[in-house]
Amino acid sequence: MIKVKLLDYTPEPERVVAMAARLCYSAAGAEELAERLSEEKVREMVRKMVKIGHGSTLEHASFTFGIEGVSRVLTHQLVRHRIASYDQQSQRYVAAHGFQYITPPTIAERPEAKAKYEALMETIRGVYDELTEMGVPKEDARYVLANATETKILVTMNARSLMHFFNLRCCNRAQWEIREMAYKMLAEVKKVAPTLFFNAGASCVNTGHCPEGEMTCGKFAEMIKLREKD
Amino acid sequence: MIKVKLLDYTPEPERVVAMAARLCYSAAGAEELAERLSEEKVREMVRKMVKIGHGSTLEHASFTFGIEGVSRVLTHQLVRHRIASYDQQSQRYVAAHGFQYITPPTIAERPEAKAKYEALMETIRGVYDELTEMGVPKEDARYVLANATETKILVTMNARSLMHFFNLRCCNRAQWEIREMAYKMLAEVKKVAPTLFFNAGASCVNTGHCPEGEMTCGKFAEMIKLREKD
Amino acid sequence: MIKVKLLDYTPEPERVVAMAARLCYSAAGAEELAERLSEEKVREMVRKMVKIGHGSTLEHASFTFGIEGVSRVLTHQLVRHRIASYDQQSQRYVAAHGFQYITPPTIAERPEAKAKYEALMETIRGVYDELTEMGVPKEDARYVLANATETKILVTMNARSLMHFFNLRCCNRAQWEIREMAYKMLAEVKKVAPTLFFNAGASCVNTGHCPEGEMTCGKFAEMIKLREKD
Amino acid sequence: MIKVKLLDYTPEPERVVAMAARLCYSAAGAEELAERLSEEKVREMVRKMVKIGHGSTLEHASFTFGIEGVSRVLTHQLVRHRIASYDQQSQRYVAAHGFQYITPPTIAERPEAKAKYEALMETIRGVYDELTEMGVPKEDARYVLANATETKILVTMNARSLMHFFNLRCCNRAQWEIREMAYKMLAEVKKVAPTLFFNAGASCVNTGHCPEGEMTCGKFAEMIKLREKD
Repeated sequence: MIKVKLLDYTPEPERVVAMAARLCYSAAGAEELAERLSEEKVREMVRKMVKIGHGSTLEHASFTFGIEGVSRVLTHQLVRHRIASYDQQSQRYVAAHGFQYITPPTIAERPEAKAKYEALMETIRGVYDELTEMGVPKEDARYVLANATETKILVTMNARSLMHFFNLRCCNRAQWEIREMAYKMLAEVKKVAPTLFFNAGASCVNTGHCPEGEMTCGKFAEMIKLREKD
Repeated sequence: MIKVKLLDYTPEPERVVAMAARLCYSAAGAEELAERLSEEKVREMVRKMVKIGHGSTLEHASFTFGIEGVSRVLTHQLVRHRIASYDQQSQRYVAAHGFQYITPPTIAERPEAKAKYEALMETIRGVYDELTEMGVPKEDARYVLANATETKILVTMNARSLMHFFNLRCCNRAQWEIREMAYKMLAEVKKVAPTLFFNAGASCVNTGHCPEGEMTCGKFAEMIKLREKD
Repeated sequence: MIKVKLLDYTPEPERVVAMAARLCYSAAGAEELAERLSEEKVREMVRKMVKIGHGSTLEHASFTFGIEGVSRVLTHQLVRHRIASYDQQSQRYVAAHGFQYITPPTIAERPEAKAKYEALMETIRGVYDELTEMGVPKEDARYVLANATETKILVTMNARSLMHFFNLRCCNRAQWEIREMAYKMLAEVKKVAPTLFFNAGASCVNTGHCPEGEMTCGKFAEMIKLREKD
Repeated sequence: MIKVKLLDYTPEPERVVAMAARLCYSAAGAEELAERLSEEKVREMVRKMVKIGHGSTLEHASFTFGIEGVSRVLTHQLVRHRIASYDQQSQRYVAAHGFQYITPPTIAERPEAKAKYEALMETIRGVYDELTEMGVPKEDARYVLANATETKILVTMNARSLMHFFNLRCCNRAQWEIREMAYKMLAEVKKVAPTLFFNAGASCVNTGHCPEGEMTCGKFAEMIKLREKD
């Protein structure tokens, strides 16, 4: 089970976005900016920044997630997002005896596949233990560990980078595991910054535009049809 | 007068760094990490991360500064630091009638130079006003504005990027204006994260190493001599 | 007059993009990839990468521009693009006696405005010379220089970053000077990588989508109308 | 066997660095810069840029490597370097039947360990085949693949980012596999840009400074002793 915990974030993330917006367009100094904005004004300005895509203002708000119960498949995809900060549980320094693992639904739902999968994971655990007992260092014994092996990772992204992450990873074309994690992250940030993330999600939802071309899932075409019916 | 105000920052910035460190090297999950670290343990781990240069852990803590009373000379240098987020008062949208300006000390201390400088700024103010009255848009009238013109900027950097910024800009080879600002930023973050920034500053102070080669200011050589005397 | 010269670029920029694409989706090794692709196949693959927005493949091709005849207004906007590399003529180290300057068209076309503008530039030149003669260092004398002052800059961007740059800066909402430069850069890269940049330009042209919301120039709405007429 | 092939790079990488350096410090325009520099002058300027650490000038030269014969352990470490561009052979789209794999020396040199390791890889191959035959999609079957599984990746880095990469990954504290790859990359770039990379390598070699603190390998302390003997 993927666990996503919002460990830390910029206090009042929407206020800092509003302050940044106001700084650009007014003569007010930083101190004035901090004091005078009402809750309602903050929401109005944040909504405007999101709508016109004034991305720089969104970068001042950062969010740190503690993530567990995910595979190394997922983290190898995740860390390709470069405008972000990561710290991951090390397989060089942390022993993996009796490691946990992720089972894809397409395997879990096929009993025969599931049995073979679980037996293999048990075999890998055994070989890992044997290798380390023979004196192979952890950093090398881990070469036997499967992509499925559970890992933990700390991720920090600012709101702009998160929105782009959601564009790609909430998309139906993303793999199920990272998509599930992306939706959990989105749910977390919506709790603390509902206006900032009011329309965040896959590109089609967020920008009204599907960039997948011929590889589209078809959802966007359906959205267009529904709109035309109205 | 340069005004630097720490407007916002990751709450408990040192705790998040310690959590990231612990995640890398232990089997503990994110939730456990958050709960169990004492103040003293946090400080011990942060100090270690800084000393061994485990930079990724420092990135989870972010700091947002409101900066005023600085010139466009300074901001043109500042925004060259790319691992950071900026929003700056716009000369396209905000009118600059009667703009304020920065006077370099080497000009302020020469009465004749100062007089000419101030007269020129007055002239520029006049031409700016005349141009806008003739119908020239603000975005074009600003072509007459001097580098000295006062500007305001919001800057967010994470702790790792900040340390690199201090390495370069607290250095005696940096220009006086950005160096003054850098020291004010350093003073601000030291108040809220004293362990994280305990040895932050110019490269020679921070890393015990001067990268300026033949362009060195000489301070580092003196530090070495002093050390050898002990 | 803005001068944009493509000084250097990845040889065969489209081939490297095609190779990257092929690596992702086939079992072929790097060596095979390099050898077997025909010109036509390269073009076909590049066109596909651009259409489906597989941005990572576009990053392997880089372009270096030498740019002259632009103002510090422009470069202050330019260097805000952070996924790029810059080196700019230094006002700290290079003397600005008799500097050149840029005149915005809205000023050039108003004779009275133009006269005042040119007289002011002459005055600034005089004050700059006087200050340096009094012993004010170049790095401080430059505080009097106008935003209009001509500068030179070297810029390197990869194709993905360039496309984003064109999205924003070929847009009618960008300022005239940087837009003119962006179009010149686009013309240069089209010469050496016509398929890669076949639909590059403002967002509306490139992505079929205008992100400017209520601040739109109206061009996109017109494009939609024209399309509906067909 | 790790294969590193330099597939593409900025033509005359040292010349572009020298041009960038000259642009910063002289009044020459981009065109003049390109024409007038002799080979010897280029080398002299590049050497100076490297020595004084004027990193921005190094960024204009980019290098693209085709890499094969490496494990997913290595690529998961590699892609953590964020100032770089990657395209990797996809386990979602490319079938892994009969995949190749990397064997760590500490396993290869222990016959019993080696036998168990190879048997396990055979078992994994079998399970992967069975799962895909049962209808499990490739993107999910790959959850059984080991970290050891061979992969291919295309990497582009500019010279500055490469130098930092060598600082960390040529270091004795890096894992053997990525260190071996780093040295091969270094050998490749030295062939085409010997002055640019004349002192590139681990931090101790490159900067005369070991940042590893208490986790040092001891090599730097030995270097210091040797230097003192002279």
